[in-house]
Amino acid sequence: MKVAFAQLNYTIGDFEGNSDKIVSTIEKAKNNGADLVIFSELSVTGYYPHDLLEKKEFIQKAEETVLKIAGICNGIAAIVGAPRINESEHGKKLYNSAFFLSEGKIQSIHNKTLLPTYDIFDEYRHFEPNNEFCIVKHKGENIAITICEDLWDEQPSASEFGKDKLYQISPMEELIKFNPDFVVNISASPFSYNQEDWRKNVLISKAKKYKVPVLYINQVGAQTELIFDGGSVFISKTGEILKELKYFYEDFLIVDTKYIGGKQVQNPSGTIEKIHDALVMGIRDYFWKMNFKQATLGLSGGIDSAVTLVLAVRALGAENVRVLLMPSKYSSGHSLEDARQLAENLNVRYDVVNIQNAVDKFENELAPLFKGTSFGVTEENIQARVRGIFVMAISNKFGHILLNTTNKSESAVGYGTLYGDMNGGLAVIGDVYKMDVFKLSRFMNKDGEIIPENSIVKPPSAELRPDQKDTDSLPEYEDLDQILFNYLELNKSPQEIVEIGFNENVVTRVIRMVNMNEYKRFQAAPILRISSKAFGFGRKMPLVAKY
Amino acid sequence: MKVAFAQLNYTIGDFEGNSDKIVSTIEKAKNNGADLVIFSELSVTGYYPHDLLEKKEFIQKAEETVLKIAGICNGIAAIVGAPRINESEHGKKLYNSAFFLSEGKIQSIHNKTLLPTYDIFDEYRHFEPNNEFCIVKHKGENIAITICEDLWDEQPSASEFGKDKLYQISPMEELIKFNPDFVVNISASPFSYNQEDWRKNVLISKAKKYKVPVLYINQVGAQTELIFDGGSVFISKTGEILKELKYFYEDFLIVDTKYIGGKQVQNPSGTIEKIHDALVMGIRDYFWKMNFKQATLGLSGGIDSAVTLVLAVRALGAENVRVLLMPSKYSSGHSLEDARQLAENLNVRYDVVNIQNAVDKFENELAPLFKGTSFGVTEENIQARVRGIFVMAISNKFGHILLNTTNKSESAVGYGTLYGDMNGGLAVIGDVYKMDVFKLSRFMNKDGEIIPENSIVKPPSAELRPDQKDTDSLPEYEDLDQILFNYLELNKSPQEIVEIGFNENVVTRVIRMVNMNEYKRFQAAPILRISSKAFGFGRKMPLVAKY
Repeated sequence: MKVAFAQLNYTIGDFEGNSDKIVSTIEKAKNNGADLVIFSELSVTGYYPHDLLEKKEFIQKAEETVLKIAGICNGIAAIVGAPRINESEHGKKLYNSAFFLSEGKIQSIHNKTLLPTYDIFDEYRHFEPNNEFCIVKHKGENIAITICEDLWDEQPSASEFGKDKLYQISPMEELIKFNPDFVVNISASPFSYNQEDWRKNVLISKAKKYKVPVLYINQVGAQTELIFDGGSVFISKTGEILKELKYFYEDFLIVDTKYIGGKQVQNPSGTIEKIHDALVMGIRDYFWKMNFKQATLGLSGGIDSAVTLVLAVRALGAENVRVLLMPSKYSSGHSLEDARQLAENLNVRYDVVNIQNAVDKFENELAPLFKGTSFGVTEENIQARVRGIFVMAISNKFGHILLNTTNKSESAVGYGTLYGDMNGGLAVIGDVYKMDVFKLSRFMNKDGEIIPENSIVKPPSAELRPDQKDTDSLPEYEDLDQILFNYLELNKSPQEIVEIGFNENVVTRVIRMVNMNEYKRFQAAPILRISSKAFGFGRKMPLVAKY
Repeated sequence: MKVAFAQLNYTIGDFEGNSDKIVSTIEKAKNNGADLVIFSELSVTGYYPHDLLEKKEFIQKAEETVLKIAGICNGIAAIVGAPRINESEHGKKLYNSAFFLSEGKIQSIHNKTLLPTYDIFDEYRHFEPNNEFCIVKHKGENIAITICEDLWDEQPSASEFGKDKLYQISPMEELIKFNPDFVVNISASPFSYNQEDWRKNVLISKAKKYKVPVLYINQVGAQTELIFDGGSVFISKTGEILKELKYFYEDFLIVDTKYIGGKQVQNPSGTIEKIHDALVMGIRDYFWKMNFKQATLGLSGGIDSAVTLVLAVRALGAENVRVLLMPSKYSSGHSLEDARQLAENLNVRYDVVNIQNAVDKFENELAPLFKGTSFGVTEENIQARVRGIFVMAISNKFGHILLNTTNKSESAVGYGTLYGDMNGGLAVIGDVYKMDVFKLSRFMNKDGEIIPENSIVKPPSAELRPDQKDTDSLPEYEDLDQILFNYLELNKSPQEIVEIGFNENVVTRVIRMVNMNEYKRFQAAPILRISSKAFGFGRKMPLVAKY
C-alpha cells in the first residue's frame, strides 16, 4: 500500500488553518497516487490544547472539522487525530482518538489507551483510557492504528525509580492478534536532545518484536514551550529505518509499505546543531502563531544575550529585531564594544541608553529609608530592574516581544533578578546549560566570527558591581552544569551526586539554591524546552515546603 | 468506639514537624480515652507534595516516618496518610495510602482508588489506582477506610460537560459488602466558597445511602495557593451532621461512633466571612511555613491595596507590615490622604516616596527613541514599573515579602502591568472578584471604620493618566464579574452567557481580554485560591493558540 506521511505544523485551536493544511495535503497525496495519508496525534486541534479541551464548543468544532475532512476523502483514505466525547455514563468526558476516514465518511474510531501523565504530559486530566481494540481493513490490508504512547509501553523515566512499565496493558499485544500488515503510529512526541535515540530505538524494537513495518508520523513545530521535532520514520519489519522525514520542518513523503530496499535517512546532525535548529523553530513558531513579527532584547556584550540574538535573527530576520545596549558604571570596557560589534555583524538596529540617571534617582529617593545600610543585592537588583523597564518600554511602544536571555544554569540557581533580567515573553535559552551556550556560540561562529571572540572567552559576569564574576557566588560552570544535570534530568539524590565525585559542600549548596528559587521560576517566562526535564510545567514543585 | 479527629496543619516535606504533631496528638487522644485517632490524607508529607514525590529519598523518609509513628501506637490505633511504593512490576511507582497503625505496627494498608486529575488535582501523575478492597477490624468493630475522592465518586465539575461519574468503579460499593460499622474518610479537600455545601451534601448522601456513620477528617491550613478549610464532620447513619470541627484552625475532638444525640456544629458564618478567614490563614501559613515574618505592599488609597493590607495585618500583626505610598501626578488629591489614614488606623509603618523623578528620567532617556509618539500605555506602564522597583527595593533591603494586590477581575482581563503592579510573592486577593473586594471592605468596617469610606465609594482607577477610571476600558464591575464568573467558574460558552442576558459585544470583548492575557497570568504571583476555579495551576491554558 502507498502511504503518505504528512508531517505538519499545527496551531492549537486553529481549526480552519489546520483543516486547510490537512485537506490540501490529502489532495496532494491523492494526486501522487497514495492510498492512505497519515497525520499526527490530535492534528485537528494541535497538540496539546490543555484546558481548551474543557470547552464543549471546542470539542464540537473538532468533531465538525473531522467530518468536513472525511467529506473530501474519496479515492484515498486518511487517518487524523482529534478529541471526541466519551458517550458512556462513566469515565472522563473525552477520548484522544484516531479517525480512519474514507469514502467520504468516518469509517472507524480508535481511542488512545495509554495516557501519559509524567513530565509535560497531562492526558489523563481530560481523557478516558481505551480498552477495546480493532483493526482497519483497507485495500485488502490490515492496518493496526496506535496513538503515540500506545506503541511504547516502556518508559525511560528517571522519576519512576527505575520502573519502566507504567501501564497495566499493552495495546500492541492486543492488536497483533489481528495480524496487521503494518502499524501506523500517530504521535506528538517532543524533542529532547538527551533522549534523541531512545525514541527511535523503541520504534525499532517494536517493529522487530512484532515483525511488522511501523509507520511513525510525528507532529512538527513549537507549541509555546514545547518543540516537536518531526523526524517521522518508516521502519521495516526487520527493524531498519528505511525512510526518515525532516527534523524541525514540515515534510511530506510517500512510501510503499512493501518497500524493503535501501535506506534513505536524514544526514545525521550533531546535538548542538539540533538544539540550534530547535530553538530557531521555537522562536519562529511562537511569533507566527501569535501573529507577532518583531523582537527586542537587552544586549550586554555577554554570551547569553549574544547567542539569543543570533537565534532571534535566524528565526525572524535582522530587520525584525532591535536591541538595547544599557551599560552601567560597572560594565567592563569591552562589553559595550562587543555588543555594538555583534549588532553590526548581524545588521540589527541598536540603541544605547544610559541607565545610571534613573538608577541614581531610585537610590536618592530611597536614601533616607536605607540610611546605615550598604550597597548589596538590593542595589544590584535596582540596576537590573531599570534595564527591565527600558526594554519593556521598547516592547510596549513598538510592539516588539521581549526575548529573555537567561540560561538554564542561572535559572536553576536563581542567578537573576525577578522583574529585571528575568523579564520577557519567551525564554529562548532557558533550557540550555551555560556550557552548551558556549558550544552554541562556537557553532554559530563556525563559518566566520559573528559573536565577538571576547564575548565567548571573557569570564561570565552580571556586571552589577565592580569586578563581579559569576564564579564569585557560583561554582565553575563545568561543575555546576554537571551537578544540575544529575539533579534535574537524571533525578539523582544529593548523596548519589556526591558519589559521582563532586564535593559534598558544593553539591549541597547548589541543590539548596535550586530548591530555594522555585518562587523565582514560578514567575519566569515560558522556556523553550529541549531537554527531558525543563523548568516549567513539566516540573511541578511546591513553593511552600520544607525539604 | 471512641474516635479522635485530629484536624492538623501540615507543612509539605517537613517530616519531623509533621510527625511531632501527629505523635503528640496520638498521645493526647490516648490520654483522653480514644480507641482510634484519625489524621487527614497524606498527613505525613502534607498535601500535596507534587514532584517531590518523584524523589526516592522523599518516599523513603515518608515510610520511615510512618514506621516511627506506628511504634508509639500502643493502647490506641491511628490512621495516617502517606505515599508508598507500588512494588508491582506494572503501573505507576506509588500508591496514595492510608496506614492503619496499632500495637506498635502497621496492621494494614489501604490504597486510594479514585485519583482526581481535574482542576488543581494531579494525583494520577504519581499514583497507581487501587483495585483491592478490605476492611479493618478494631475492638470488635468493622472500619471501612476511604481516602478523599474514594467516597465521592460523583463530581460537580463544570468542565466535564455535565457528566458526574468520572470513574469506572465505586470503592464504597465494594467496602459496603464487608458490613462496616462506620466509614472513615481521610481527606485533603480545599476550600471553595462556591462549593461549600456540595462537599457536606455528598458526605450526608453517602451516610444515608449506605446507612453507616461517616467520620470525615480534612486537612486544615494553606499550602502556597491552596487553602484547606478543615471543617471535619461526624455524620450519623441517618445523614445528620452531629459534630463539626473548626474552619481554618487546627482542631481536635473525640466522638463516640455510637453517639446519635444532639447536634453540635459550628456557628454558620457567611460567605464573605469565610473568604476573609481563608485569606488571613492563607497569608499566615505562607509566611510561617517559609520562615518569613514581614510583609510590604504599595498602598494606593484604592480599595484593593486597602483590603490586602487589612488582611496582612490580621495575619501577621501591624508590627510586621510596612507600606509604601507612591503617589504620582495623576493620583487624585484624596488618594494619598486615604492611604495615610488607613495606615494610621492600622498602626502600620508607612513611607512616602516620590516616583516622578525616576519616571522623568526614563522618559527623558527614551525621548529620542520615542520621538513622534504620544503618551499611552508605555508611559502608564513605566509609572507602574517604577513603583514596582520601589516596593521590591524595600522587600530586598529589609526582607519583607511583597504582597500583590491584584483582584480576580483585573487579573482576568489583564488590567495590570507585568513587572509593575503585578509584582509580588503572593497574590492575596487574586481569586476575589472586585464586587467581593467591596464586600470584604464593608465586612472589615462592620465594627467601625478601618478602611476610609472614600476608598470604598470612589470610582476605581489605576491613576496612571489624568482622570482615568477603570470603566474607561472595562464594563461596570457588576457586569464584568458576572460574565467572568459564568465563563471561568461555570465554564459557560460565550453564547450561553449572552443568553443569560448580557450584551453580546461586551461578552465577546471580555472573553477576548481573558484569552489574550494568558501570557500575563503565566508570570503572575501565586494566587490564594478561594473559588472552584482560580487562575493558577488549576487552569491550564496554552499560551500560543488561535481560539
